[in-house]
Amino acid sequence: MYICQRIQALEAYTPGEQPKDPGIIKLNTNENPYPPSPRVADALRDFDYARLRLYPDPVFHGLRQRLAEIHGCAEGQVFIGNGSDEILALCTRAFVEDDGSVGYFEPSYSLYPVLDAIRGAERRPVALNADFTWRMPDGYRASLFFMTNPNAPTSLRFEPETVAAFCAGFDGVVLIDEAYGDFADADCLGLALAPGNVNTLVMRTLSKSFSLAGLRFGYVVGPEPLIGALYKIKDSYNMDMLAQAVGLAALSDLPYMRENVRKIRATRARLTEALRARGWRVCASQTNFLFARPPDGDARRVFERLKAVKIVVRYFPGPATGEYLRITVGTDAQMDALLAALDALRA
Amino acid sequence: MYICQRIQALEAYTPGEQPKDPGIIKLNTNENPYPPSPRVADALRDFDYARLRLYPDPVFHGLRQRLAEIHGCAEGQVFIGNGSDEILALCTRAFVEDDGSVGYFEPSYSLYPVLDAIRGAERRPVALNADFTWRMPDGYRASLFFMTNPNAPTSLRFEPETVAAFCAGFDGVVLIDEAYGDFADADCLGLALAPGNVNTLVMRTLSKSFSLAGLRFGYVVGPEPLIGALYKIKDSYNMDMLAQAVGLAALSDLPYMRENVRKIRATRARLTEALRARGWRVCASQTNFLFARPPDGDARRVFERLKAVKIVVRYFPGPATGEYLRITVGTDAQMDALLAALDALRA
Repeated sequence: MYICQRIQALEAYTPGEQPKDPGIIKLNTNENPYPPSPRVADALRDFDYARLRLYPDPVFHGLRQRLAEIHGCAEGQVFIGNGSDEILALCTRAFVEDDGSVGYFEPSYSLYPVLDAIRGAERRPVALNADFTWRMPDGYRASLFFMTNPNAPTSLRFEPETVAAFCAGFDGVVLIDEAYGDFADADCLGLALAPGNVNTLVMRTLSKSFSLAGLRFGYVVGPEPLIGALYKIKDSYNMDMLAQAVGLAALSDLPYMRENVRKIRATRARLTEALRARGWRVCASQTNFLFARPPDGDARRVFERLKAVKIVVRYFPGPATGEYLRITVGTDAQMDALLAALDALRA
Repeated sequence: MYICQRIQALEAYTPGEQPKDPGIIKLNTNENPYPPSPRVADALRDFDYARLRLYPDPVFHGLRQRLAEIHGCAEGQVFIGNGSDEILALCTRAFVEDDGSVGYFEPSYSLYPVLDAIRGAERRPVALNADFTWRMPDGYRASLFFMTNPNAPTSLRFEPETVAAFCAGFDGVVLIDEAYGDFADADCLGLALAPGNVNTLVMRTLSKSFSLAGLRFGYVVGPEPLIGALYKIKDSYNMDMLAQAVGLAALSDLPYMRENVRKIRATRARLTEALRARGWRVCASQTNFLFARPPDGDARRVFERLKAVKIVVRYFPGPATGEYLRITVGTDAQMDALLAALDALRA
């Protein structure tokens, strides 16, 4: 009786499993198979633990400076969150009135509808076409639109020109979630940082390309008024002192990140080809995972058989996704094990 | 135009200053003058940075287990947040409908009204009496009541029996914020964990007694249905892997924390006496700070004169608090420097 009605009714978001068995090949949450930059290890080793008795910098100046430098923008155009998830939740409160609405594609990141339900906002999902491209309904409106680009779980990228045209015509805020942006051939950062832009934000994370999912570090760039609204409503000290130190270390070593991205893209190409040779339909991935349909479309069966041999991938039931598996691109050795397991299933 | 009206109108919370000058004696944000447990240093040294490529345990099993052990309760009665601030914000969303209201004392933690404004909830503050005790208005109601106990900035404790009577008669959720509970002679944990309790939560933090303000680690205990609602709406991975490891290390060394608390309480008694001997009115502190009125009541002048000699305390303008300073209890050496500075001002 003390709990809000919409929270009582809420079905919570289910994160991908975090199995403890070290023998498992874990390809279910799009983690990077390579460790973070050695500078992260240095930052931890050199961190004076006694400093933890003090509060962290509430507005993380050093980090904002570094990110502004990387993206060639002003510090006031950068906001950092305790994971991208925090930024998404803040957007639903900063840019959506109580009678407002939130849009997103289906299929896309399955957290979006949960966040809207928590916020109590009207949901205005847009179903993607069968080939996972989009066509917005005539007269479509929403207060806020979440667009993952490249999209998950489809792995496909929408062209910056298409996205720009949508944003220009949209009467609300667009948050382009580029969690997988570093693995793609193009991105929309220019759109968020263009001088005339008033409604478009681009979000990035250190979870994937920087191998720091354990840290919780997301950031968003865009017009100062929108960014300023996020600062106003964030928790006073949302980024702890260790996360600030470790994040800065990772962001000081872009070549290391880029080399890992190069390796993952090479492995991605190899796995795509190998699956296609086995009759799978594989989307042309722009991310660190594949979205792929086994020859008979019985993805659930493959999911379960793989799990039985300790290879965990992700399966999303439902009409648009139920014939596909989402498979994280791991090391070459992990992909060899995956292919061998798939061949054993067929034999 | 894209930003919610209530966010546009919002005046953001101002955290206490974090001056960079290492020569400053910093007595303005109630940080612990002693470093965290040496086990925190061990945990950082032993942490395998390569693990950071993986997502953290979303529901922090090890930590919940440890906290349940410490408090003699079930794991389902414990929730952990990225700082107490995150927990407070979650409560305004879990326990307050859109047309609901939030109560709190005045003066108390100045973040409460900001959180209510962000939530869009009606604010129902209750002014404390001149001696900082309370008398609830007849027929007082609210969806959620935030009660800091011991209170800040007054440093005074409300008796558990008084709090229990209030909670029993209150038709809403009561969050008792025991940020300073380890420094007090009594607490309300028993109230939150009593079998018949349905509406009362007690919140703790590692920021003060455990010397971990830099970490962001708060937790709350109470009835499983209320705690379960917080799990439903939290960010998927709100506690990062490092914070989980460091928090667990600190919570495994209660004797170290208790010894620091003992030292701070001894220094508190000494400083209270010294200020009273100089004609100050000093509240009988149950926290790691003093709330104290200089002989002439010109607290602002003392605040500014101390700042000029690099001793930073906290001053809250306003009718109820404007004649007082909030002074963090530091080391004995820091308190000697403070007293010498005050004597120099009088000379």
